[in-house]
Amino acid sequence: MSISTSLEIPERILLGPGPSMVHPRVLRAMGQPVLGHLDPQFLALMSEIQRQLRSVFETKNEMTIPVSGTGSAAMECALSNFIEPGDSVIICVNGYFGTRMCDMAARYGASVRRLDRRWGDVFSFDEIEAELHQGGPAKLVALVHAETSTGALQPIEGLSEIVHRYGAFLLIDCVTSLGGVPVKVDEWDVDIAYSGTQKCLGAPPGLGPVTVGPRALEVLRNRKVPVGNWYLDLTLLDRYWGDARTYHHTAPISMNYALYEALQIVREEGLEARFARHRRHAEMLWQGLEEMDLAMHVPLKHRLPMLTTVRIPEGINDAALRARLLKEYNIEIAGGFGELVGKIWRMGLMGYSSRPENVTLLLGALKDLLSR
Amino acid sequence: MSISTSLEIPERILLGPGPSMVHPRVLRAMGQPVLGHLDPQFLALMSEIQRQLRSVFETKNEMTIPVSGTGSAAMECALSNFIEPGDSVIICVNGYFGTRMCDMAARYGASVRRLDRRWGDVFSFDEIEAELHQGGPAKLVALVHAETSTGALQPIEGLSEIVHRYGAFLLIDCVTSLGGVPVKVDEWDVDIAYSGTQKCLGAPPGLGPVTVGPRALEVLRNRKVPVGNWYLDLTLLDRYWGDARTYHHTAPISMNYALYEALQIVREEGLEARFARHRRHAEMLWQGLEEMDLAMHVPLKHRLPMLTTVRIPEGINDAALRARLLKEYNIEIAGGFGELVGKIWRMGLMGYSSRPENVTLLLGALKDLLSR
Repeated sequence: MSISTSLEIPERILLGPGPSMVHPRVLRAMGQPVLGHLDPQFLALMSEIQRQLRSVFETKNEMTIPVSGTGSAAMECALSNFIEPGDSVIICVNGYFGTRMCDMAARYGASVRRLDRRWGDVFSFDEIEAELHQGGPAKLVALVHAETSTGALQPIEGLSEIVHRYGAFLLIDCVTSLGGVPVKVDEWDVDIAYSGTQKCLGAPPGLGPVTVGPRALEVLRNRKVPVGNWYLDLTLLDRYWGDARTYHHTAPISMNYALYEALQIVREEGLEARFARHRRHAEMLWQGLEEMDLAMHVPLKHRLPMLTTVRIPEGINDAALRARLLKEYNIEIAGGFGELVGKIWRMGLMGYSSRPENVTLLLGALKDLLSR
Repeated sequence: MSISTSLEIPERILLGPGPSMVHPRVLRAMGQPVLGHLDPQFLALMSEIQRQLRSVFETKNEMTIPVSGTGSAAMECALSNFIEPGDSVIICVNGYFGTRMCDMAARYGASVRRLDRRWGDVFSFDEIEAELHQGGPAKLVALVHAETSTGALQPIEGLSEIVHRYGAFLLIDCVTSLGGVPVKVDEWDVDIAYSGTQKCLGAPPGLGPVTVGPRALEVLRNRKVPVGNWYLDLTLLDRYWGDARTYHHTAPISMNYALYEALQIVREEGLEARFARHRRHAEMLWQGLEEMDLAMHVPLKHRLPMLTTVRIPEGINDAALRARLLKEYNIEIAGGFGELVGKIWRMGLMGYSSRPENVTLLLGALKDLLSR
């Protein structure tokens, strides 16, 4: 094992929909030596990660763990554990990630009742209640809190009262929202929520935090058939993350170091200060973009602070501009997808990427490239 | 974001069944800045990882990728993509990981035909042929190449000819074998093989290499129903890892850096030299253990070089000895599980852990603790 040159990666300015930039402390944490997945030191770290995750989800839910995959694995975990073949589920689709939930739910045998909205809109509680009322009982209602494909923030507070009244439970996707805007799992009475590490939590992609409340836990414990997915089976994962510490799979140790350190940084900053920072830099960005006569895709009322969607001006080549932004300025932003491909850019200011210098640089670079 | 103390992890001497120790170059690679999952530089890195994985699997299979989960996710990927409800599959169980395959296969609707052997034994080709002959057609025959729970190496070479003659295909678990003993996917005509990164490849846990040959690919492309698992659906993953580069999920970027660097180290050392190193240090260990009158659980003929199973002497408290080994010598080894709990220790010399100083230290520490 000779001494040799190691991998060298350029430091990009990541201002797309994720992954976001990672604090040097988090990068250093990943370089710590690997522990065994049953080492007492690693078990203590797991407990601390769970405590901090409960804090960012604002919940007391005992079952709050990072699953060993990216945000999409967390989505699949949240769906597969609570769906049994034939279950009726309502999925609200106003962007790409809603369609993904429909795809996954169907694979686990759900009968999917899909509500559709224009990409960029949000759902009213009335239309969700109408579906519950007219369409018959449903096991769960699923929504995306922060739609990464459109930039819209779905209101959640108050919805659980309606959903629970009809005997369903409430599942929300917080992949992009967690750590950037309030996600009050207990206060909002959300039954299942999940996220990813690579957005506003400021860790690299690789883990998917999931939290499960008492109602959903009851449903999980009373399943008639085993969970359709072994790797993401919460009844098995609970024995590793819970008191029994029974081996399930080998946890991605280094990714857990990264999440631990990222959550320490969240704690040191404080949730309220972190939300205010995301908001402040988003407003800087919006003002600068509007001064350049660029139009926002989502009205202010429902606009995400961590992910801004801007309409691409007439006559501008989407891919060419993004390629030049990357090549000349080392900045990554993203285009739209699905029905928004070629129509919007997605600009993220998430976690460690949400810094004033990044806003100023992005605005300056865009001004230069759009004027040529 | 203040300057604060970072996570400090003790450097353990990992001589259990995995994770194994990680070369400092690999740890440093993980500390490199995060790239976007569609960044041209990351796409180039992905292609290089695929090339190097083909090299360690000794295959030309185009579909050779690391799935974004640990070895168990690779196992689930290998099973879920090729099983449709009602398929008859033969699973050979001579240890814990065989039972896990049965559990997973059943969740995807397979009709599981389980062949059992004492934990520590291996299967003869005759008994597998007998099952194919008498039990009727099967879609696949699955075996564990290196059983991490028992320390036995299952012969594979020559088996595919039999399996293919009966119209089935051959699936092997190489989680512990890959990078430590030959895994000749093309020469042995294996249809599906998978592994993990945290054993003999010498990277941290977090990715699961999978390779799929032309016969299995044909079966995958002609499925009647979608793959039961979205996150591990190879038909979708192929569009991201293949030429289309279509977004599926956000790859765990830093883990891919680690795997890239670990594979560079494998390439620099050379496969043959690496196998010889694993063998040499295993023999050192066996000799030392035998000199201490300890008995091996697996006969020499089928004994794994990277994972040695030793019978615990009468009168020794398994858990207490391992706790002292960790506390006093900073060494991790593991106990048995399933029917071998309390009966064996599992001592791994995998990847970067397979070094002469580790053997000498482990033998010295055991001699001390067993003599007290």
